[in-house]
Parts: sequence; C-alpha cells; structure tokens
Amino acid sequence: MSNAAATTAPHRDLAFTRRLDAAAAETEQLLDRLLAVEPLDGELARPRRLLDAMRHASLGGGKRLRPFLTIETAALFKAPRERALMAGAAIECVHCYSLIHDDLPAMDDDELRRGRPTVHKAFDEATAILAGDSLLTFAFDVLSRPDTHPDAAVRIALVAGLARAAGLGGMAGGQMLDLAAEGRFTFNIQLTEADIVILQAMKTGALIRFSCVAGAILGGAPPSAQDAIGHYGAAIGQAFQIADDLLDVEGDPATLGKSTGKDAAHGKATLVDMLGPDSAHARLDALVQEAEAALAPFGAEAATLRAAARFIAERRA
Amino acid sequence: MSNAAATTAPHRDLAFTRRLDAAAAETEQLLDRLLAVEPLDGELARPRRLLDAMRHASLGGGKRLRPFLTIETAALFKAPRERALMAGAAIECVHCYSLIHDDLPAMDDDELRRGRPTVHKAFDEATAILAGDSLLTFAFDVLSRPDTHPDAAVRIALVAGLARAAGLGGMAGGQMLDLAAEGRFTFNIQLTEADIVILQAMKTGALIRFSCVAGAILGGAPPSAQDAIGHYGAAIGQAFQIADDLLDVEGDPATLGKSTGKDAAHGKATLVDMLGPDSAHARLDALVQEAEAALAPFGAEAATLRAAARFIAERRA
Repeated sequence: MSNAAATTAPHRDLAFTRRLDAAAAETEQLLDRLLAVEPLDGELARPRRLLDAMRHASLGGGKRLRPFLTIETAALFKAPRERALMAGAAIECVHCYSLIHDDLPAMDDDELRRGRPTVHKAFDEATAILAGDSLLTFAFDVLSRPDTHPDAAVRIALVAGLARAAGLGGMAGGQMLDLAAEGRFTFNIQLTEADIVILQAMKTGALIRFSCVAGAILGGAPPSAQDAIGHYGAAIGQAFQIADDLLDVEGDPATLGKSTGKDAAHGKATLVDMLGPDSAHARLDALVQEAEAALAPFGAEAATLRAAARFIAERRA
Repeated sequence: MSNAAATTAPHRDLAFTRRLDAAAAETEQLLDRLLAVEPLDGELARPRRLLDAMRHASLGGGKRLRPFLTIETAALFKAPRERALMAGAAIECVHCYSLIHDDLPAMDDDELRRGRPTVHKAFDEATAILAGDSLLTFAFDVLSRPDTHPDAAVRIALVAGLARAAGLGGMAGGQMLDLAAEGRFTFNIQLTEADIVILQAMKTGALIRFSCVAGAILGGAPPSAQDAIGHYGAAIGQAFQIADDLLDVEGDPATLGKSTGKDAAHGKATLVDMLGPDSAHARLDALVQEAEAALAPFGAEAATLRAAARFIAERRA
C-alpha cells in the first residue's frame, strides 16, 4: 500500500494533509456563503446579532473533520464534490450547534473553544441558545436544497440519517447520558465499559458515522457498501472519542485551544479513565485496524479514508 | 354560508369545536406513539430522562392549533388524514421545542406553561435545552418518514418549508428580534409598527403559516392554491399574535394556565401596546376578513378554515 509510511506519522503525510486542508478551506468558503447577510426566499430577515453568533460558532476554525469524511467518502463513490460540500456543511452546522449548547453554563460551562470565547461569552446565553437552534435548523435547510442532490429521494435519505444521528437516539441522547454519568441527577452512577461505549457511540460516534454514510448515500452506494462505510464510521467515531479523552489527559492546552483535565474535574466517564492510558492506546490501534478492515472491499481507492482513521487516532490537537 | 352564525360565537360552533378536539386527540395519540420508549432503527437508546422531558413538553395539553391547521388544509386538498397527522405532529414538535427554549431562565424565564411547570422547572436547565434540541431534530425525523408521504419530493418540500419557517429567517430569528426589542443588547430601541409586524411574522407567524402550507403541499395543491393558503396562513398568524397580546392585557391567568401582564413587565414590543386595545381589535377583524378573502377560491369547502380564522381572533385562552 502506497501510504504505509503514514502509519507511523500520518500528520506528516503531505498528500493527506493537503486534502484535509483543502476540504476545510472549501467548507469554510461554503459556510461563509451560506451564512451571508442577504435573506433567502421565505426568510423575512436574517437578524444580524443571530447571524453573527452563528458565524462566530461555525467560521474561522476547526479541522472540519466531518465534512472531510463526507467529501472523501463521496469521492470514493464518484459523487460530485460540490454536493458533498453541501452535505458536509450541513453536518458541520449540526456539530457547531452541539458545541454551542454543550458549552452553555447549564451544560459543560466552557469559556474557550478553538482558542476563542464560546458563543455565550462572546454574545450572551439567550443568543447562544438561539444560534445553536438556528444552526441545527439550518442544517436541514441546506440538505433540502437541490444543490445538495438533484434527486429528492437522496436528499430525504440524508435528512432522515442526520435527524436520527443527531437526536434523541444519537448525539443529543448521548449528551444526556454524559450529564447523567457525571452524577448530576442521581448519586453513585456506576457505568460499565459497555455503557460508556454506547454513550460515546451516541454522543460523538453517531454524527461521525453519519458523516461517512452521507458520502455513500450521495454516491448512490449499494446497501452492502453503505454498511461497510457505516462500520468504518462507527470505528473511527469510537477512535475519535478515545483520542479526545487521551488528549484531555495528555494534551497541551496551547495546542488544543481549550482547557484540559476537564473530564476528571467534571467526573466525566471515559474509557481512558476506566482502562488506563496504555490499554486505551491499544484500543485505539485495534479500532484503526477495524476501520481499515471495513474498507477492504474498496481497495486502493480508499487510501485517504485509511489515512483518516490513522489521523484521527494519532492526532495531537 | 352555512357557518354564518359562527361569526359571533365561534367557540359555540359545535361542528368546529368537535373537529378541533378530534385533531387534538389524534395528535396527542400520535405524539405519544412516536415518543415511545423503544428505540427505532439507527437509535442506540432513548435515554429515559430526555424522553420524559420531551414527553412532558409535548403531551397532555395544548389546543394543537398548528396540527389542526395542517389537517384541515390537507383535507381541503383531499390528502389522507394520517399523513396530515404526521406532518402536524412534526410541526407541533417544533412548536413545543420553541416553548421549552423560550421559557428558559436566559430567555423569557417562565415557570408555568399550560398550567404545569416548565421543563427546566420540572427537570433542570440542561435537560430542558437537550429536550428542545431533540424535539426540533425529531420533527425532521418524522417528516422524513414514508408514513408522512410516499413521495420523497413531497417530504423534502415539507422539510425545506419547515426549516425555513423555524430558523434564522423565521421563528428563531423572530425570537432574537423580540429579545432585542426588549432592550437587552442596546438601549432606546424604537420599533416602528412595520418592525413589529415583521418581528411577529417571524416569531409566531412563520410556523402558523407553514402549518397551513404543509397541508397544501401534502395535497399536491397547484402553486396558485399554495399561495392562497400562504396568504391565509400569514393573516391568521398575525391575528394569532394580536389575540395573544390582547390576552396578555385582558385575559384571565386561570383560564390561560399562564401568568399575564408579562409583556409589559418585560418591555415586549406588541401591536396592542402601540395601537391600543380598540385599534388592535379592529386590526384583528380586518385580518379575519383578509384570511376569509384568501379562501375565496375554495368556496364552501373551506368553511372549517374560515371558522379557524375567527376562532383564532376571538379565542379567550
């Protein structure tokens, strides 16, 4: 495999880094254009303070990992890049909404995000709640547009998948379980390893998984290929969370642009905490292998997705 | 017109009341079923506390005015009732999410809703934020299902319309303008009558208007008929808000199940405040006539929608 050298240093894989950066730059441009000042048909106005808060939360930063996964999965199935960018931008809006609401004082109470003040700090709590609500709603607006895909059946499949990944049984439900695991509502919560795996599969895994599946949907992939991509997405989603939890223990706040050690301070339930760092690193390696195995049917064309799995497991920020 | 007697006492129009009550009961049943404990395909779990908060906010009360409008407009265009119920339930989820978030301490800070504790009082703030997020997301889940309509093009038209009515340029944007009008972010806000009309068309009008248009979309109504229904919906949306503001001045808290006089206390900008109660009542009458005029092309078959306009203008709770 041509990318074998990347296994030890994926962040030095120049071809991969260039693709990741290009996807981030194009996503930034598209979000900037989608969140323009001019109201669209059916919008009576775009209130400036709300728009500014949405832009604060969604522009000017982030690796754009989720759009990147949509773009690269779509490329594997020969879907046009501009459609993948639309779907990726919608998913990024959902990701950014979740960060705004998770950072609120009533939730994780964070003041810093990507090295900048969180939305309720830069604006105020009411504006932050509404900006989150509006970004979530906007994601479905973007998915519903013919620019995302000319076939309504494809667009509605994306809507269905995103709603399920983000809602009660996915991301929002996972955040609820995470707050419960902190012991907010009852004392002496004892989570098993299986509980934590489900919690994380919901909280962060479901949206990362859907970011991959969305590309397969856009590319009209057959069910077996969609399943394979779903397995890949679930594995890297789990890897992402373990890597994130390891960074909270081992990472450098300056590089991360956010404070560390917060999980322990909040009593967050993590696999790193339960398994210890060494076993967590071993689990990460196993998940990368699982992700790579899921990509086996696609051969050399899935090289970038393979590199993405390693990048996610080994990232330092 | 057979319903002429209803002009003076619409709440005594038994046929209308029966239809309204039936739609409310069926909507309640459907929401109860949609928000069941069992996770669906693609949901890893339905966390109990989150589900309970969503159910607290969406079950056991409310006139279900928005689903009723969807059901009756769909009936006008001969769409099957069970599809209208699905779309109406989705719209009601958006309405209920907006109530949860509007009631939060950082927003309008309300403790009572429909005579019961608001979600953040019955549960807690974090749960309330997540329950609102999840109901909003769930609305798009429901719209995306084939039960709502077998044709994906119809479902995606509903998604597009709901997203635009609820988001940045609709309901959420209107709530932002309303907070700004309270003078939260700058002093000496001087709103014109036109400003208030736009604010209210966004905050409450857009979703009520879409509740009507959704029925026309479900029924495959031609563009001219969809426009007529849109005009009707905009007129009754404006009437709804004026009636609501009049109730805040003139209403009885016991009948309403919520406190009154809050608009004045919060410095809310209302047309009642600007025009005075007498002119506001005259405006209401004019809006009912405008709504009835918009229904002219549909003749006697639109009798229930005509009665709905009068009901909205003359309601006492």
